[in-house]
Amino acid sequence: MERKKIAIVGVGLIGGSLALQLNEKGLAAGIIGVDNNPFHAEKARELGLVDEMMDLDAAIDNCEVIILAIPVDKMVELLPGVLDRVDQQIVFDAGSTKSQLIKAIKGHPKRGRFVATHPMWGTEYSGPQAAVKQAFENKAVVICDTQDSDKDAVDWVKHAYSKIGMHLLEMDAIAHDLHAAYVSHISHITSFALANTVLEKEKEDDAIFELASGGFESTVRLAKSNPAMWVPIFRQNRENVLDVLNEHISQLRKFKSCLEKENYEYLGELIENANKIKRILK
Amino acid sequence: MERKKIAIVGVGLIGGSLALQLNEKGLAAGIIGVDNNPFHAEKARELGLVDEMMDLDAAIDNCEVIILAIPVDKMVELLPGVLDRVDQQIVFDAGSTKSQLIKAIKGHPKRGRFVATHPMWGTEYSGPQAAVKQAFENKAVVICDTQDSDKDAVDWVKHAYSKIGMHLLEMDAIAHDLHAAYVSHISHITSFALANTVLEKEKEDDAIFELASGGFESTVRLAKSNPAMWVPIFRQNRENVLDVLNEHISQLRKFKSCLEKENYEYLGELIENANKIKRILK
Repeated sequence: MERKKIAIVGVGLIGGSLALQLNEKGLAAGIIGVDNNPFHAEKARELGLVDEMMDLDAAIDNCEVIILAIPVDKMVELLPGVLDRVDQQIVFDAGSTKSQLIKAIKGHPKRGRFVATHPMWGTEYSGPQAAVKQAFENKAVVICDTQDSDKDAVDWVKHAYSKIGMHLLEMDAIAHDLHAAYVSHISHITSFALANTVLEKEKEDDAIFELASGGFESTVRLAKSNPAMWVPIFRQNRENVLDVLNEHISQLRKFKSCLEKENYEYLGELIENANKIKRILK
Repeated sequence: MERKKIAIVGVGLIGGSLALQLNEKGLAAGIIGVDNNPFHAEKARELGLVDEMMDLDAAIDNCEVIILAIPVDKMVELLPGVLDRVDQQIVFDAGSTKSQLIKAIKGHPKRGRFVATHPMWGTEYSGPQAAVKQAFENKAVVICDTQDSDKDAVDWVKHAYSKIGMHLLEMDAIAHDLHAAYVSHISHITSFALANTVLEKEKEDDAIFELASGGFESTVRLAKSNPAMWVPIFRQNRENVLDVLNEHISQLRKFKSCLEKENYEYLGELIENANKIKRILK
């Protein structure tokens, strides 16, 4: 397929990393950035992530593909107005939740121009300076409710993600949000809570600065993640996240109960069961 | 200092990785392995981690330094007998808990020959085939209760760990076990519990195999860790681990309560507070 003129709304970690990949893989005939944060706009230009910055309306009018890579609350606010303005452009998002976004444009006359996607990649950093090359490669991208999108739009989006090196997965928005709660959202909550646990207990002691080991770093690194991104995700996926969080607390209570009752045999069984995760994490 | 003849008891992940480093950094005049698992013994020889395998008594009689790298319950059983047999050899351990081990040899006539250490490095894998080169470099090693060890023994152990590239930290066994609960042991419990949460909920669905992203992998990888190693650690450090676990559950309940009450402002504050972990994790 030929290169397309692409507008990226939100030139942060995800938008910036997508820009690098779209250029690298020969998918873009030019990239227009849109960002209401003037520091991010300036930085994105400086880093060469985008060719030029425009305001949203001008960007829509001057491109063939629009990518939304902004926090999921802003996405729900912005998408209906974007669709009001598009003609034959393809619009897709890269957000971590899907149900509310799709609901927000239900029955929109331009619904077909939109493709709902979630490329399952990210880091704990944010902003254009966090953008990295070769991001997304060998990760999964979920594409939701494709039956409601125009075929040409779905085809191009699949083509682009494949070129970037992602595995395509299709499911409906409801299923996506449920799975995302398990494989992504709960990890962030445990990490935030673990950070708070340690910060609370180690307030008066600097030893932790020296001791923090690889295992700690691994479980806690997500705790650096940006609240402006994560509060809206937890909010939109509230019921699923609460379900998983309740299950997680009850699993932690089993460990607690084993220790309290000194039931080390059952503790061993809990750990053996957890080891089955090896099937999932190669 | 001159090279020493070293016996390593337990040629698994830690013992094997230490063997590689001791050879690499010119600290060993030869390495004797001791392991009651015949498959590990065979593998350690095959991989060239050790020059020869011996039984424990022969190894003690034929070396100048004895390193114990076995699960912490076995350590407590074995160490008094090792000290009964040593003459001027230096003995040190690499275990994750310290108080009970030190208690087990309190007042032993050869107490001075023993140095209690915890090199803060590991992976979720185990066995000699898990041994890796350049392990331990740029990590911290805690050396406990040095006032009870002979000066020549402490000096050599510090020299060896420095050569390997570790940062030396001294503290008493009680403080070590408290900090270890925060920066290492709790991370393993949350990882085990998170794995069980996901395995429980995703029982009938294979989507997770495809979706598991980097963030999930990072928070859950420790769940692959070996129960034979971890049950004894949690058992020996039971009170500290319970303390931290209670605090962690109460931190998770704050997230739960925010979601239940839809208090997104406080949710944002909890995340902002967690972000302070950036000070600790560079």
